[in-house]
Amino acid sequence: MENYIKYTYEQLKKFCTDAFLEFGFTREESDIIVDVLLTSDLYGIESHGMQRLVRYHKGIEKGLIKIDAKPEIVFETPVSAVIEGHDGMGQLLGHKAMSIAIEKAKNVGMAVVTVRNSNHYGIAGYYAKMACREGLIGMSMTNSEAIMVPTFGRLAMLGSNPIAIAMPAEPYDFFFDASTTVVTRGKLEIYNKLGKPLPEGWALNAAGKGTTDAADVLKNIVAKAGGGIMPLGGETEQSGSHKGYGYGMLCEIFTSILSMGLTSNHTHIGGKGGTCHGFIAINPEVFGDAAAIKEHLSTFLKELRESPKSEGADRIYTHGEKEVFAYEDRMTNGISVNVNTVAEMVDLCKYLGMDVKSYLGEEAENLRLSKSSYDM
Amino acid sequence: MENYIKYTYEQLKKFCTDAFLEFGFTREESDIIVDVLLTSDLYGIESHGMQRLVRYHKGIEKGLIKIDAKPEIVFETPVSAVIEGHDGMGQLLGHKAMSIAIEKAKNVGMAVVTVRNSNHYGIAGYYAKMACREGLIGMSMTNSEAIMVPTFGRLAMLGSNPIAIAMPAEPYDFFFDASTTVVTRGKLEIYNKLGKPLPEGWALNAAGKGTTDAADVLKNIVAKAGGGIMPLGGETEQSGSHKGYGYGMLCEIFTSILSMGLTSNHTHIGGKGGTCHGFIAINPEVFGDAAAIKEHLSTFLKELRESPKSEGADRIYTHGEKEVFAYEDRMTNGISVNVNTVAEMVDLCKYLGMDVKSYLGEEAENLRLSKSSYDM
Repeated sequence: MENYIKYTYEQLKKFCTDAFLEFGFTREESDIIVDVLLTSDLYGIESHGMQRLVRYHKGIEKGLIKIDAKPEIVFETPVSAVIEGHDGMGQLLGHKAMSIAIEKAKNVGMAVVTVRNSNHYGIAGYYAKMACREGLIGMSMTNSEAIMVPTFGRLAMLGSNPIAIAMPAEPYDFFFDASTTVVTRGKLEIYNKLGKPLPEGWALNAAGKGTTDAADVLKNIVAKAGGGIMPLGGETEQSGSHKGYGYGMLCEIFTSILSMGLTSNHTHIGGKGGTCHGFIAINPEVFGDAAAIKEHLSTFLKELRESPKSEGADRIYTHGEKEVFAYEDRMTNGISVNVNTVAEMVDLCKYLGMDVKSYLGEEAENLRLSKSSYDM
Repeated sequence: MENYIKYTYEQLKKFCTDAFLEFGFTREESDIIVDVLLTSDLYGIESHGMQRLVRYHKGIEKGLIKIDAKPEIVFETPVSAVIEGHDGMGQLLGHKAMSIAIEKAKNVGMAVVTVRNSNHYGIAGYYAKMACREGLIGMSMTNSEAIMVPTFGRLAMLGSNPIAIAMPAEPYDFFFDASTTVVTRGKLEIYNKLGKPLPEGWALNAAGKGTTDAADVLKNIVAKAGGGIMPLGGETEQSGSHKGYGYGMLCEIFTSILSMGLTSNHTHIGGKGGTCHGFIAINPEVFGDAAAIKEHLSTFLKELRESPKSEGADRIYTHGEKEVFAYEDRMTNGISVNVNTVAEMVDLCKYLGMDVKSYLGEEAENLRLSKSSYDM
């Protein structure tokens, strides 16, 4: 691919781990952060892997993300916990919260753990998968900087508010991870870079009307001047806009509301992050024979994949399948990183006093950061 | 309204209650069934109230719905239960299952109860509201006859698979109840009756391609000849089709999978219903001060309603608001019932040996059923 440099998983892992160690995280913490980031790249979700490094870099630099924050459990029962994140790194808070949810679900069957005053935690699905690997149903949600405009509105009031769910199945786990907006901001940025008009039904201008002008929408988002991205279901109730808005609310309930944290419209204002997360773990054993339940799901997923295709389509995917293929491909063939992202990584190397050439190669050494994708 | 006859809530309640008593349900059972049905009409969800009576009537007549079915708890823990419905009335199974979930949530903080081998249970939201009235977060889901075509498919494999959630708030509870398809079949039937082409992005023909021909789609659905309704998000991944399909799967997991019941594609085949439901109740007290949490949600809902409107829009709704207004209006001004539905009610009266005139009035007495909307 043009404009991409390919690295092995091991190369990127070494670079990232050392970078987070340089920032001052412990070895254990760095390992967790790096695993979340690289899992995203391995799944083919480029927007949430190496491409996000610059945001963490700037977030730490600005003090939005506090390296030495100690998460505090402020409320707890056998089925629940609320964690005050004290502006810590999202991945560490997410990992801790889901670990607690998993432990509780193993003890009592199910649990919900919420987190407030955190930061961007990477892909929501990572934490759902943590539970899935333990044989549980995992769910993970996060609110974010406001970007979703509610139906009939013109100001972004909810975040991209992803909801992820994973459940063990053969040969692939069921794994669904998606924003409750039609698309994420990353998609708008891609269209903007290419100078292409946005598809209809994605974004709203400052007056709250549908627009295809990516540059205008992105400018307004940064300036908080109105407009943003439509809920899943588009602009009108006819296409189900109120439903995507409803799923966005469901996410808000399990993140900001049940943690008494900031709702999306109050996060990322005045040098404060304040992101909230929610994690659910459910043990299938509390519904009977977990192996039979797993087989039941596997059968349905197989029936879906094998059901008749629409004219011109050659396959039906079940959720999580694409990630399995992407993972295998990237582990074997390496991970392609956009040169602009590599330039940001070079910048980070220099900031942390790391040797660019030995971490990122000769090709990277000569890259200059033209325009940072960072616009937090 | 033309083609509508207006009844008071009390009139319809008396008619329905006596009808279900005549079918052989007990007084307590009839009260539950009627409350579910009439709540739908009071909320303005015409498709799931009196209009559904004919389906229950035919379902009972055909033996799909068994009046004397006794629900059986086949698996139970302090946080969960699985109920075998033995083909009983969906409303009774739903009511029982959510009552169990509520009791467990009050005891241990949260619970999930699933039901298999049930029948259509009315509006999903009714059961979410049951929990909400007790100060809990309530969720309710059901699978159904397959009608949703998975992305890239051409055969309906999932049901309309609604997900409902309710949570206490002031002055209106948050209450979201929506199918995970773009629209429900009822909407297609309305366009068909009016002879209007469907909006783009709603339905697929037998080849799995987008179509605006309502009559063709409905014919194919009944014949199981292919095609059906698109997931929320429409036909392509570009508009988020895979996301609606993912929420449909989430519903399937909490209904058919965790009850070991029939997945949507296997329900309603060969004289068997087999619908599955799932109910979740969560006590906000396991996250801290329930009153503060309620206030937190109320504040966010108020901010949403008061946020700037899009050009030409005069209000932003929060979920549940429309139902509150509809309820008040119908309790005061009566419930308008479509004459075709009234004709079906007349038919039911005659079947059960009930006096048409005294229950439904003189105007109804002369109505003749032209074409039943029943096409199960």
